[in-house]
Amino acid sequence: MNAAPLALTLGDPDGIGPEIALKAWRALRDCGPRFVLIADPDHAFEAARLLDLPRPEAVTGWAGAAAIFPDALPVMALPAARGAQAALASIDAGVAAVLSGDAAGLVTNPISKARLYEAGFTFPGHTEYLAHLTAQAPVSGPRGPVMMLAGGGLRCALVTIHRPLREAIDALTPEAVMHTARITAHALARDFAIARPRLALAGLNPHAGEGGALGREEIDILAPALETLRADGIDIAGPLPPDTMFHAEARAHYDAAICLYHDQGLIPVKTLDFHGGVNVTLGLPIVRASPDHGTAFDIAGQGIARPDSLIAALKLAADMAACRSGAKP
Amino acid sequence: MNAAPLALTLGDPDGIGPEIALKAWRALRDCGPRFVLIADPDHAFEAARLLDLPRPEAVTGWAGAAAIFPDALPVMALPAARGAQAALASIDAGVAAVLSGDAAGLVTNPISKARLYEAGFTFPGHTEYLAHLTAQAPVSGPRGPVMMLAGGGLRCALVTIHRPLREAIDALTPEAVMHTARITAHALARDFAIARPRLALAGLNPHAGEGGALGREEIDILAPALETLRADGIDIAGPLPPDTMFHAEARAHYDAAICLYHDQGLIPVKTLDFHGGVNVTLGLPIVRASPDHGTAFDIAGQGIARPDSLIAALKLAADMAACRSGAKP
Repeated sequence: MNAAPLALTLGDPDGIGPEIALKAWRALRDCGPRFVLIADPDHAFEAARLLDLPRPEAVTGWAGAAAIFPDALPVMALPAARGAQAALASIDAGVAAVLSGDAAGLVTNPISKARLYEAGFTFPGHTEYLAHLTAQAPVSGPRGPVMMLAGGGLRCALVTIHRPLREAIDALTPEAVMHTARITAHALARDFAIARPRLALAGLNPHAGEGGALGREEIDILAPALETLRADGIDIAGPLPPDTMFHAEARAHYDAAICLYHDQGLIPVKTLDFHGGVNVTLGLPIVRASPDHGTAFDIAGQGIARPDSLIAALKLAADMAACRSGAKP
Repeated sequence: MNAAPLALTLGDPDGIGPEIALKAWRALRDCGPRFVLIADPDHAFEAARLLDLPRPEAVTGWAGAAAIFPDALPVMALPAARGAQAALASIDAGVAAVLSGDAAGLVTNPISKARLYEAGFTFPGHTEYLAHLTAQAPVSGPRGPVMMLAGGGLRCALVTIHRPLREAIDALTPEAVMHTARITAHALARDFAIARPRLALAGLNPHAGEGGALGREEIDILAPALETLRADGIDIAGPLPPDTMFHAEARAHYDAAICLYHDQGLIPVKTLDFHGGVNVTLGLPIVRASPDHGTAFDIAGQGIARPDSLIAALKLAADMAACRSGAKP
């Protein structure tokens, strides 16, 4: 196991973040990976009381924090801040810890974009903010971020993310496809220890356009991108009919699918593994994973939130950090 | 069991249709449902030899054909025709048999659109041709066709089908959504014995548009359709975020999803159940189902094609016919 623990951010303090952090600690305290929650300790104490779990232990430095983990969840105290400001301060501290080497990787609890916007946040989302915070740090290979969803034996990297579907189609270019594919191929090799990554590019249209009869993007945009990528030595199949590329037998032929729009990648991952899907950011100077769900304000504080996705994110981030550091495989 | 057998068309004679028909007969001969293959008997004899199965029996009339089924696959001889013409003649004969009551429902093997077009066929596909052949027959409720995919515990009816994704978005109107939803609700009640069908409408954009931030189709097109449908007494939820509506827990809340474009519905069905998915046509005067795959020319004649989807289609068509006739539940 990597000596440095993972840094886990608070997320929105009124969401399920503190609660699932404690549940993940309960599940992982004996077997790891070890992590430190970056939060106002009161939030962690409250969650522990709710779940009838041992009181977390506030720490003030990273040295020794991981050693506490089998006995109590270590909580790195934040400067006093509330709501969205606390969520941002936790992210800032987590990124700094990973960049400095105090933490092995970053796992982020869900934030509320609406509440961040009210607090003056100007980034489209979590991932873009992390790219901003790490923009000055060196990165191996092409710089992202690229969002990849992993779950149910499937990895899907996205060419476009949070855009209306119409705009996502407008945004498709050979360059955008190549950018996502290159970052994904590099990350699979570096962070997933897949020596010769095999990619599969999804088509845009039904039956991948059926030779132009059902749309021309496969011919005009995807084919030139594939040609260039292959000339560069990237192993990438496609464009594949989107409906027949995600079942178990098809998945056996590739390590990651390159998907053109949000739901093309998220529908199969969340259909296969709704509770255990993980959101991974590729092409950053730091390892970053997060649970693939939101703040769930509607069930926060009830003790019923499921930690499956957070636990999967912690395990995946630990594996990625180990691969990146050379400790694995 | 319904007294009349199902009519199974040949599909493209050079595809896997004859072979999977014989394999389906082997699986169903003892337990049904019973079906009659409409084909040049030589094609059926050849497939039986390939699979080392008992020789099918050529019949010239529907009376008594079903009684042969436990001993040999009954084959209704076609007028001499080859290739695409044979495929069309088989469809014509099958539709006529169901309309006359000789057959309980129609199950169609895959055809090759490219080969049909070469032979002068002018319909966009199989389903539209069936709608044409049955246009003069009375239909209960609103007239389709609507394509629905069923498999893996999920039913998805499609608002748009074989169109480029961009054109599918352009074709979305409240009327198109209401048309699909009404036919689906009616068919679930009549053909699936679901007394009070619950529908779920998918959004178009990521997170179903997130209140307009990620696209306006949910507000401008889907909301008015939902309002009218609910005023008409149709139980329909939505618009739902497409990525979180297809997993097992979400599916428990509806009987069929109304999906806006081909891959939105086909990705989850085929990811869940690649081999057993069934294509059902709703809103026709006849019951019609088909396997959810193509002619598979590349593996035809090798004895390796899987009959899972055809078997599922035969069972589903028999259930639908029983519901429609009042014999079930």
